[in-house]
Amino acid sequence: LYSDKVLEHFANPHNVGEIPDADGVGEVGNAKCGDIMKMYLKIKDGIIEDAKFKTFGCGAAIATSSMATDMIKGSTIEDALKLSNQAVVEALDGLPASKIHCSVLAEQAVKAALADYYRKN
Amino acid sequence: LYSDKVLEHFANPHNVGEIPDADGVGEVGNAKCGDIMKMYLKIKDGIIEDAKFKTFGCGAAIATSSMATDMIKGSTIEDALKLSNQAVVEALDGLPASKIHCSVLAEQAVKAALADYYRKN
Ligand code: FES
Repeated sequence: LYSDKVLEHFANPHNVGEIPDADGVGEVGNAKCGDIMKMYLKIKDGIIEDAKFKTFGCGAAIATSSMATDMIKGSTIEDALKLSNQAVVEALDGLPASKIHCSVLAEQAVKAALADYYRKN
Repeated sequence: LYSDKVLEHFANPHNVGEIPDADGVGEVGNAKCGDIMKMYLKIKDGIIEDAKFKTFGCGAAIATSSMATDMIKGSTIEDALKLSNQAVVEALDGLPASKIHCSVLAEQAVKAALADYYRKN
């Protein structure tokens, strides 16, 4: 059902936690399942220096957020804004169709955190 | 959003795992979010001696399964069959409305495991 990469990121998720002095914080909810995700970004000179997330969501939400935060760390804001849930799902070698909505949570949380950053600057 | 008891069971879920020589095994899926839960029961003389679960589901699914397995351990099959998701949610001091569907997963998995036990005996 789940790829090795998904199970790996579920068992040992990267970048779980909060960033107390984050430059951008985004919180999004999933209309389909009711799950919530909070994303924290540390940004300097247009580069995402750190990213952490917290969620009560399912294993697929955890795995995609783990992968998504890995992918945006060190990237420019512009590249992070372009990160799609499809790209994250591909990097994880796929997800069952019924769990694609979970991957949307990670993408939206990154965008919400970047919107928060822009609002503040 | 979540009660202390829910957060407690999410952080330290009880009865997570498999029972290799289980007398009844149930696997159910959640139509709403696509999550899957597997429930293992060890039954002797009509009493549920052990219960374990595995899920890729969200924090609410984990917390309700942790509580549900606590509640049925040591009980008769008859009492376990009567366990409702409402009773589990009450024991957890409630869940947000958007997460009630997750508690159904635990109830259905217990019933599916008991049905499997009856089928085999
Ligand atoms: S089912 Fe809600 S995030 Fe996956």
